[in-house]
Amino acid sequence: MQRICVDMDEVMADTLGEHIRRYNQTFDEEVTPEDLAGKGLWEVAPQDRQQQLRDFLDAEDFFEDLDLIPGAQEVLQSLSARFEIFIATQAMAVPNSLGPKYRWLQRHFPFIPPTHYVFCGDKSILRADYLIDDLPKNLLRFQGQGLLYTAPRNLTATGFLRVDNWQQVADYFAGVASR
Amino acid sequence: MQRICVDMDEVMADTLGEHIRRYNQTFDEEVTPEDLAGKGLWEVAPQDRQQQLRDFLDAEDFFEDLDLIPGAQEVLQSLSARFEIFIATQAMAVPNSLGPKYRWLQRHFPFIPPTHYVFCGDKSILRADYLIDDLPKNLLRFQGQGLLYTAPRNLTATGFLRVDNWQQVADYFAGVASR
Repeated sequence: MQRICVDMDEVMADTLGEHIRRYNQTFDEEVTPEDLAGKGLWEVAPQDRQQQLRDFLDAEDFFEDLDLIPGAQEVLQSLSARFEIFIATQAMAVPNSLGPKYRWLQRHFPFIPPTHYVFCGDKSILRADYLIDDLPKNLLRFQGQGLLYTAPRNLTATGFLRVDNWQQVADYFAGVASR
Repeated sequence: MQRICVDMDEVMADTLGEHIRRYNQTFDEEVTPEDLAGKGLWEVAPQDRQQQLRDFLDAEDFFEDLDLIPGAQEVLQSLSARFEIFIATQAMAVPNSLGPKYRWLQRHFPFIPPTHYVFCGDKSILRADYLIDDLPKNLLRFQGQGLLYTAPRNLTATGFLRVDNWQQVADYFAGVASR
């Protein structure tokens, strides 16, 4: 059975949405995802708010209750009949996210066993056929076929097989023979 | 550069020692590692203590302060000059171990960056040249060269390249050309 690794932040979970929400609330701003085309929240926030941006992520509850990216549950449930699904998330940069990410996955993706969670840093460690990820640097390190999941920050990235939403992920794998 | 994945429990950290210590303390027993040749603590403990054995592992502080396996620090520090070292630990069966394992690694192995920690379940996900692990089932799933690190439970396992201690790990890799 072929194996698909799936990134969490911006692919399964709306991490950016929560980051923007806390930023807007704290600083009385009205940043939208559209304002971030081609860049990260870090790049639009002034210098004296960078530490606070980091502190949002380090908060114990930040990763506890993120919204789902629409379609992730349904499409992954369907794909899990034909492919081996692993979750591969960059968790080591924010150690407080480890427990919350585990609980979030159990709650929203009960059909994926915890043995198939991979909390890592450098994604070159993954042995899999596919990786769906929003970060070009992760796809460049990965040795299988990468799919760039569209997120505001990566809109200007070129040279990747790109999927804009989970329906496009489903369409892509519908054309891939299981083996 | 070739890549070595290293398991934590029983290879870097004396997890069994702590498990036995809590067991003996709680039940006024005198189990030693020697009593466990070829089997796990689960197999020598009576049925009515199985839940407590599990509860020890789930305790918030269990993985926080484990003793080091002798030689692990020195040999890994030395190997890290010639090999890319990743830590690959089965953390998903005990989610409370995630934070403690992260902190333990930072404290005792500061020369290995957190980007090279992999908290996982099924070790077939690892893309690496070598895996040092005390569990035969992990080595059987791994696609590179496995080294079985001797622990009481695996004494009866055969068919593996076996290392009894960290000096033997050093000796083995001294004979492996870096590339």
